[in-house]
Amino acid sequence: MTIRRVNSFWNGGKEDVELLGGKGANLAEMTKAGLPVPLGFTITTEVCREFYRTGRQLPAGLMEEVFRALVELEREQDRGFGNAEHPLLVSVRSGGVTSMPGMMDTILNLGLNDETVEGVAKLTDNRRFAYDCYRRFVQMYGSVVYNIEGVHFERLIQKEKQFAGCMEDQQLSVESLISLVEQFKKLIDVRTGRSFPQDVKRQLQGAIEAVFLSWSSPRAKVYRKVHHIPDDQGTAVNVQSMVFGNMGERSGTGVLFTRNPSTGEHVMFGEFLMNAQGEDVVGGTRTPCPIAELQETMPDAYKELSICARQLELHYRDMQDIEFTIENGKLYLLQTRNAKRNARAALKVAADLAREGLISKEEALMRIDVQHLNHLLHRSLNTDSGHAVMTTGLPASPGAACGQVVFEADTADEWKRAGKEVILVRMETTPEDIHGVIAAEGIITLRGGMTSHAAVVARGMGKPCVCGCESMRLDEEQHQLIGNGIMIREGDWITIDGGSGQVIPGQLELREADLSPELINILDWADEVRSMKVIANADSPVDARKAREFGAEGIGLCRTEHMFLSPARLPIVQQMIMAEKEMDRQAALNRLLPMQRSDFEEIFREMDGCPVTIRLLDPPLHEFLPNIEELAEQLTALRSKEGETGGELLELERMIRRVRDLQESNPMLGQRGCRLGIMFPEIYEMQVEAIFQAVLRCIRDGIAVLPQVMIPLVGHVNELHLLRNLVDLIAEQVLGEERRYCPYKVGTMIEVPRAALTAGEIARSADFFSFGTNDLTQMTFGYSRDDAEGKFLAHYVENKLLPHNPFQVLDTEGVGKLIEMAVAQGRARNPLLTTSICGEHGGDYESIMFCQRIGLDYISCSPYRLPVSRIAAAQVHIRMQAELMLQEEDIQTNEAEEKAV
Amino acid sequence: MTIRRVNSFWNGGKEDVELLGGKGANLAEMTKAGLPVPLGFTITTEVCREFYRTGRQLPAGLMEEVFRALVELEREQDRGFGNAEHPLLVSVRSGGVTSMPGMMDTILNLGLNDETVEGVAKLTDNRRFAYDCYRRFVQMYGSVVYNIEGVHFERLIQKEKQFAGCMEDQQLSVESLISLVEQFKKLIDVRTGRSFPQDVKRQLQGAIEAVFLSWSSPRAKVYRKVHHIPDDQGTAVNVQSMVFGNMGERSGTGVLFTRNPSTGEHVMFGEFLMNAQGEDVVGGTRTPCPIAELQETMPDAYKELSICARQLELHYRDMQDIEFTIENGKLYLLQTRNAKRNARAALKVAADLAREGLISKEEALMRIDVQHLNHLLHRSLNTDSGHAVMTTGLPASPGAACGQVVFEADTADEWKRAGKEVILVRMETTPEDIHGVIAAEGIITLRGGMTSHAAVVARGMGKPCVCGCESMRLDEEQHQLIGNGIMIREGDWITIDGGSGQVIPGQLELREADLSPELINILDWADEVRSMKVIANADSPVDARKAREFGAEGIGLCRTEHMFLSPARLPIVQQMIMAEKEMDRQAALNRLLPMQRSDFEEIFREMDGCPVTIRLLDPPLHEFLPNIEELAEQLTALRSKEGETGGELLELERMIRRVRDLQESNPMLGQRGCRLGIMFPEIYEMQVEAIFQAVLRCIRDGIAVLPQVMIPLVGHVNELHLLRNLVDLIAEQVLGEERRYCPYKVGTMIEVPRAALTAGEIARSADFFSFGTNDLTQMTFGYSRDDAEGKFLAHYVENKLLPHNPFQVLDTEGVGKLIEMAVAQGRARNPLLTTSICGEHGGDYESIMFCQRIGLDYISCSPYRLPVSRIAAAQVHIRMQAELMLQEEDIQTNEAEEKAV
Repeated sequence: MTIRRVNSFWNGGKEDVELLGGKGANLAEMTKAGLPVPLGFTITTEVCREFYRTGRQLPAGLMEEVFRALVELEREQDRGFGNAEHPLLVSVRSGGVTSMPGMMDTILNLGLNDETVEGVAKLTDNRRFAYDCYRRFVQMYGSVVYNIEGVHFERLIQKEKQFAGCMEDQQLSVESLISLVEQFKKLIDVRTGRSFPQDVKRQLQGAIEAVFLSWSSPRAKVYRKVHHIPDDQGTAVNVQSMVFGNMGERSGTGVLFTRNPSTGEHVMFGEFLMNAQGEDVVGGTRTPCPIAELQETMPDAYKELSICARQLELHYRDMQDIEFTIENGKLYLLQTRNAKRNARAALKVAADLAREGLISKEEALMRIDVQHLNHLLHRSLNTDSGHAVMTTGLPASPGAACGQVVFEADTADEWKRAGKEVILVRMETTPEDIHGVIAAEGIITLRGGMTSHAAVVARGMGKPCVCGCESMRLDEEQHQLIGNGIMIREGDWITIDGGSGQVIPGQLELREADLSPELINILDWADEVRSMKVIANADSPVDARKAREFGAEGIGLCRTEHMFLSPARLPIVQQMIMAEKEMDRQAALNRLLPMQRSDFEEIFREMDGCPVTIRLLDPPLHEFLPNIEELAEQLTALRSKEGETGGELLELERMIRRVRDLQESNPMLGQRGCRLGIMFPEIYEMQVEAIFQAVLRCIRDGIAVLPQVMIPLVGHVNELHLLRNLVDLIAEQVLGEERRYCPYKVGTMIEVPRAALTAGEIARSADFFSFGTNDLTQMTFGYSRDDAEGKFLAHYVENKLLPHNPFQVLDTEGVGKLIEMAVAQGRARNPLLTTSICGEHGGDYESIMFCQRIGLDYISCSPYRLPVSRIAAAQVHIRMQAELMLQEEDIQTNEAEEKAV
Repeated sequence: MTIRRVNSFWNGGKEDVELLGGKGANLAEMTKAGLPVPLGFTITTEVCREFYRTGRQLPAGLMEEVFRALVELEREQDRGFGNAEHPLLVSVRSGGVTSMPGMMDTILNLGLNDETVEGVAKLTDNRRFAYDCYRRFVQMYGSVVYNIEGVHFERLIQKEKQFAGCMEDQQLSVESLISLVEQFKKLIDVRTGRSFPQDVKRQLQGAIEAVFLSWSSPRAKVYRKVHHIPDDQGTAVNVQSMVFGNMGERSGTGVLFTRNPSTGEHVMFGEFLMNAQGEDVVGGTRTPCPIAELQETMPDAYKELSICARQLELHYRDMQDIEFTIENGKLYLLQTRNAKRNARAALKVAADLAREGLISKEEALMRIDVQHLNHLLHRSLNTDSGHAVMTTGLPASPGAACGQVVFEADTADEWKRAGKEVILVRMETTPEDIHGVIAAEGIITLRGGMTSHAAVVARGMGKPCVCGCESMRLDEEQHQLIGNGIMIREGDWITIDGGSGQVIPGQLELREADLSPELINILDWADEVRSMKVIANADSPVDARKAREFGAEGIGLCRTEHMFLSPARLPIVQQMIMAEKEMDRQAALNRLLPMQRSDFEEIFREMDGCPVTIRLLDPPLHEFLPNIEELAEQLTALRSKEGETGGELLELERMIRRVRDLQESNPMLGQRGCRLGIMFPEIYEMQVEAIFQAVLRCIRDGIAVLPQVMIPLVGHVNELHLLRNLVDLIAEQVLGEERRYCPYKVGTMIEVPRAALTAGEIARSADFFSFGTNDLTQMTFGYSRDDAEGKFLAHYVENKLLPHNPFQVLDTEGVGKLIEMAVAQGRARNPLLTTSICGEHGGDYESIMFCQRIGLDYISCSPYRLPVSRIAAAQVHIRMQAELMLQEEDIQTNEAEEKAV
């Protein structure tokens, strides 16, 4: 279809956006679809370019074509442009190829003059309306075409209001409006030496030229520069009939959502006003009626509207948000667009549209915004604003929580038993606070970052947590928390949002998480579509159950250290660490073994038939020991005490010595991970023995166990080789003959840059690679997450030194390059190698996209992120397929062209 | 030349080692060179293989050939094999292709029997000697050929000694020896049922078979397995005439070094004994004479020996260590090999040989062992052993030092002023101890690793330091240091070796460092040969002068933080850091600016015409602040004091708060390097201003200044981009018009893995890359050097989990891969990019080899390592050239072969 330089809405469509601009193309699209759009035409962007090429002149013959096009509009509306009885009014709007909101000009009600205004008055039986339109038109024309600053018009309106003794524009009488029209005309005379044109054709030409000229206004130029829009793109001009909803009782106006934007329910939703203009609906002077009532008021219009709504949904294949006007019983659609909706509705609409056959399952999946989805999966604040905020800390674990403030883990525990809901507030938490964390609804810490003890434990438990609230002050003696001038005492209510980091005084209403049938439906589709498997990070039987419930196909990361932290076990773990003799250490390990075994056993039972990846002990040992400063305080206290304390004193001193021995200047880079397993082999031996004893019990009960032993922090193949031998040896010893029922695997976490760089070597001793992207990011960037997030990372992201926080969105350029290399080299050496990502990136969309691109087999994330990851995995699969198809088409096109040559 | 299966020494040479074995080839080589070697022949390895192929049988006809070959020996010595008057004696020795010391068998004095022994007695006029030879021969034959365990012979000797009432073998009389021969023969009879052969031909055949059989002895097999020597290589057998130095006053024996092995001086060095056997020289029963005296004793022999020495040096193109015997005035050389020598001599010999034209300069350079060289450049212990060691800590800064122990920096300072030499012993040092470090001859710390404060500062000053002496105990109250049961009090003497980490009680003699004319000579040659430039890490004008003296072509790393640590400046630096208001910080910076400027100015003047690379502030700020524990103690003390201390108290509390604010859980990965420059731009601004103000002053004095501003710890190109703009802006402001006289550069340290991974991007904003391999190794391995070296790294290296300590020898597989990638990508994007390595690897041979291989432009090392690095750079260049030539030859050969086809 050829687009003419003055192009009727009947001609062209969405695909002609380059010539017609966005608005013009959309109007043509709707017209073509047979929808009742007020007729009009578009003057193309090519005309705009010619306008500038020829020294800001409209091309010869253009206005003749415009007037010819107007005839069609006159015919359709049964009115005449400049006709005194039945005047046709038009709007003149700019419409660029790229949307530039607020940058370009618009003139409404063009066609009004001293004669036609009376015609409108008669037609609408509303003289005030007619003159208000006229007043507005002259004002708009004056500022757009003659460049008179708005303030001059405003000043006249102010004076008139003073004179009339009224406060609001709407209170001005017809007489005042008539007077204002005259004053505005005079203003134009005085300031430009030209008179406001009564000739409607001259009005139209002036308006068209003004729209073109607005393309080169300073603010438009700046906007284009900032948004990288080429200067020679040009704007189109859209001229369209005006319709009136205030032409009497058979006229009206309203807005319509084709479905409910809060719930997604498939019923028309919206409101309307009879005998009114659009601004009356928005203005709030009259109360609009629910759309359902239109069925009684104007059944025909309602029926047509229903049909249009359906037609629009079919055409745009999505829920629409429509503005409509009824003029003398005739329905006009002024605008339609894809409707905004909340997360809940988005989910239901997508699912419904797919079930209704409007879109495919794949399209439905692509329409889910995974960021929004996350809100649905945690409790959230019922309102986003209007509350005081004490501070915004680090969003350490998502979800909202509310409870009474306590400052001690013991208090938290007591109060919880007494049936209270509590929020635990600490400078920072240590393993000794664990019972307090378990008891609390949520946790606040003043120090520590996204990987602090509190943050890690809270995320593991799916419990809201805000960390690093450094701007607050905690007076531990007075039991007071002060932030932003607000003081909170023990027992006061407080609310936190672990998704945003907000700490709010008082008890706010929370909205529950929701695993709706629609979500389950969408998740099923996602599972059908995606190619990467989705597994979970789960450290306990409870987590494992939750993971399975949320659709995990296995456990990708079971951190055994969390098992060490439970209050019943910590003392034994400490005893193990403090042991100076091998024998004492072994005794403690012997007590830990059955505990670990029973953990593993329960997890294996929960994950019957699915792989379970168990990471051997990873963190530095001193993390399990009490804080040195606290020990020093205890020592001082003990020393000042009288009586028999010699034994205690010695033990305390010994403990302090041992804690000091184990302290490291950079624990992140110290004696942890497999280095621990190599220096203290008896610890790993105990863990591996516990794993295979558990395996044995499960096998005998007919459970399908697929254990995968993961060696953390390998940097050199020799480390893996040594420890792999240890695992094989113990597996052999424990399982004996029954080994054949347990095809276990041994692999490693790739989290040290060197491991990625030498992945080819390492793959020869590994059955699987799991990319520990948290640590890998820390070492590749040289960022300690704890330090960076509190100190410079926020500044970096704000000032665009980094595109994202690399702990949230995988850095594909640097860290990603390492991963890509490792996967390629690893697979080259070991074709059976499986690859996965664990760490928080496993729940992030962009990162998942990257994993799909480089062809990982699995992504692993926390149970609460599983739904998000399942959908994201489906989305990235669909995107990749689409890209591949495009590439194939390109290839075919090229081949065809080559053949043609 | 065809090698026969029984091959005379006249035939073959070095190149025939496969058939003749190492010893046989060397004997042939010497014979060919016309040297007076006792004549003999070699039975080839091929015979050995055949021996095994045919079921341990000598090939048919072999012995006939052997006897024919013997005739030549008889003729030369004018003796007869088995002749009673003038008996020819021979030795039968194994000689593999690969040396297997002590693994294979040897039989001497073969040819003795009851008759010939009397002939020898007459010839040597020494019946005891003749029977001692016979006794030894029978014993050797018994154990080698008949496999009788040595203990049986020893038992008989013991008995004989008891009977004769003597303690030593040498005291046995002729009669006893004759009796022993008879007892030995009987022993052989009894244990094997065979009698000791009086037929000398049978003796020889038995010996040859025994040597071949020893190839498959269990210990030889094990040795081959361990050393990866193929089992089918086989051994050769060497049969050679025996000569006797004890045939009277015209006979003698001795050892000769062709040059002095301690000094390298070109004079014959060695000793001899007339009328003696080799074992008399070694045995110490008689005192040998210096070789010079031989000139008087036997001028002809001496002259011949001189000629031989020269000939051997010419032939082997190296200083030789020769064993010789004179039999009746005739000189025989028994053995020659390249002589062992100490570092000093090695240097002189290499230089002299090149000057004498025996070897090329390149060969002379290749003969320098850079490890040994290092000893020459620092003071060292005059003896390596025989002293008690209190502990062996980490060798943190090389060189030996000796002084009286002090435990406080203040004491060190006082005592030094009083003219004493002191060694400072601390748990660990902080910036506040700096005056003590300056005053001390050497430093010992009980805690801290190779990158602790003490280690870094000491290395910078070229001062010996031993760190991490964790096995010692420091009783600070009692002023005692205890280690290995030895207690040292304040004022006691102690000696340390910072190269080995040894701490030794008492005052040991030290040998001074030595930049001898020979070394300077060799260094000049190295500079002619090498292709990589060698520059220095130097932080002060003193270091810069030292660097220039040691041949640096520029400064590759000037660490500005060390300038911050001087006692006069530290308080201002602390004030700057403690400032809470921008204004206060600026005030402190304003005071620091002229100080930094004058440092830079002096350094620029020292390095007139050479590039000076200045790294902006790198370490985390808290490193400049006092220790938190000490502050806490001060606080406690202050609180308990009475009187007006309110102001002080507040200030102290404020300081503690600030120190705590700046503390990081992993400072290595925290707010340091350019992150500091981005968060506190005023610090970098001051530094850059100081640099360019200094530049300006130098330019005006006609100094050629080539400043290179290095931005540390860049991980993302945006960081460099931002800071480069800052540098350019300030340079512009400060230099103005004079900018054209200063072609300054801005570059970055590549020390974060991400920087290496994204080097292509970074190179677009960088003029140079300097690889900070210390940090790059830390982050690539995920090792904190401080923690790793004290905790697991030693275990890793000992147990071969790692081939080397990667902080000493660059890990080419992992870290090296990153560097290689970065160089390739950086150059692709920026062809003008220059690349260098700084960090301690710049002084390590293997690492320098790697740098040459990947084509770095510069290596930078500490001034004291410069000579080593210059020679190493020349060596690796020569090696690379040789490899390239071999490759070209291969290519040419292949091409020729292809043409032929």
